[in-house]
Amino acid sequence: MIENYKTHPNLSKIKIVMIETSHPGNIGAVARAMKNMGLSRLVLVNPKEFPSSVASARASSAADVLNDAIVVGSLDEAVADCQLVMGSSAKLRNVSWPQVDARECAVLAKKATGNGAIVAIVFGRESSGMNNDELDKCHYLANIPTNPDYSSLNIAAAVQVFAYECLMLCKQKPVKEATGYKHALASAEQLEGFYEHLYQALQDIDFLDPQKNARFMRRMRRMFNRTQLDIKEVDILRGIMTAAQRQSDKLLAYRKK
Amino acid sequence: MIENYKTHPNLSKIKIVMIETSHPGNIGAVARAMKNMGLSRLVLVNPKEFPSSVASARASSAADVLNDAIVVGSLDEAVADCQLVMGSSAKLRNVSWPQVDARECAVLAKKATGNGAIVAIVFGRESSGMNNDELDKCHYLANIPTNPDYSSLNIAAAVQVFAYECLMLCKQKPVKEATGYKHALASAEQLEGFYEHLYQALQDIDFLDPQKNARFMRRMRRMFNRTQLDIKEVDILRGIMTAAQRQSDKLLAYRKK
Repeated sequence: MIENYKTHPNLSKIKIVMIETSHPGNIGAVARAMKNMGLSRLVLVNPKEFPSSVASARASSAADVLNDAIVVGSLDEAVADCQLVMGSSAKLRNVSWPQVDARECAVLAKKATGNGAIVAIVFGRESSGMNNDELDKCHYLANIPTNPDYSSLNIAAAVQVFAYECLMLCKQKPVKEATGYKHALASAEQLEGFYEHLYQALQDIDFLDPQKNARFMRRMRRMFNRTQLDIKEVDILRGIMTAAQRQSDKLLAYRKK
Repeated sequence: MIENYKTHPNLSKIKIVMIETSHPGNIGAVARAMKNMGLSRLVLVNPKEFPSSVASARASSAADVLNDAIVVGSLDEAVADCQLVMGSSAKLRNVSWPQVDARECAVLAKKATGNGAIVAIVFGRESSGMNNDELDKCHYLANIPTNPDYSSLNIAAAVQVFAYECLMLCKQKPVKEATGYKHALASAEQLEGFYEHLYQALQDIDFLDPQKNARFMRRMRRMFNRTQLDIKEVDILRGIMTAAQRQSDKLLAYRKK
């Protein structure tokens, strides 16, 4: 039983992120679907029209979710404080992004929020979804099983399904803190810092030619995102990279001599 | 995997019934949600506006579901050929209708369609839901678990959740015909005939005073609907009632002598 959805230990830590939504009615319908299912954190990345009377009408009694919605300028900003980022997407056949379905997405969200993490479930544009840069920010892609003849759900219908799965899983007793986690999971912002560092370090040690290896970093992201690095591990990995860079610096200094 | 949703052994036998829908946009959104999830049979009971360009726009690529939609004048007509009728409803606390949640509803639907039954999932008016007469026609009431602070889903969002649960359960291999069923389940039309017969018979045998026992038949409906009578059982019960009525007729004839 959900006593107060805004303070529920799992549901209150799940964000719904909408990227460049065209139709304000969809934003309102999403707010309603969220509140019906006990979610309260809505983040809008560059919405075309917001606030909007059309959104408010469709939100019906979920005005509070709309009022509390945060508008930001980029996906990076939207997920900066999130330790787990999942992107809603049709099932992709030929890529190696880790993929889950909506029910598995809820399992991951419950587990992560039970460990104190903030979780984002990200929804792309109505017409074109997410671009590759945005997909790269997602630790998992999450799809809703569909009729293969017509797999494109309305965005509010998709949010409804994900939110419903989260509620179905979280409405029982809250997950206890797992004892296995000694350190908090790294946030998306911390991971971005890590990837920038990695990108630079790989060039510094003459491993990566940015001209020839544009897709290599995507592979790295997929690997480390799947790993779910904690803060300590990020520190350690960055320490290793700094050490390697120091060697290269020294080498460079020698060569200049 | 769903190869062709219109011939899927389970999904093709599930009807979505909408009673007196006010907003044509909701009909379109329902058609889209249905097709996304592999459902194809839409029945509209006295829709306020249909066909409608608003419905068509919201249906997006589910025009075929709208085109194939059947408009009827009563819930009785809509479910006449159905052996299992489930009504979407908020959870009711103080009545004895058998209640299931959306996931259990899908389990019942899969089982019944696997046995050759036609199943209806019925959705009431946007504002006022279903009246008691309509609830009486339902063998089960099915609810979607929600945030108790705001339990009223948009009708298309509700259809999305039920249809999603049906697809999740039915997308694996089809259910085999159960060997336990020797006779087909009775249709709603056959059950209505049975209830009319029962109502008359109970009066004939001086059991039921229609003035004093208006709610008694509801109790009978709940009991027999839960039973899921097959055709043979309906025949047998009606045979028993006919026999009882014959006794009463004879008694009446004696008294008149």
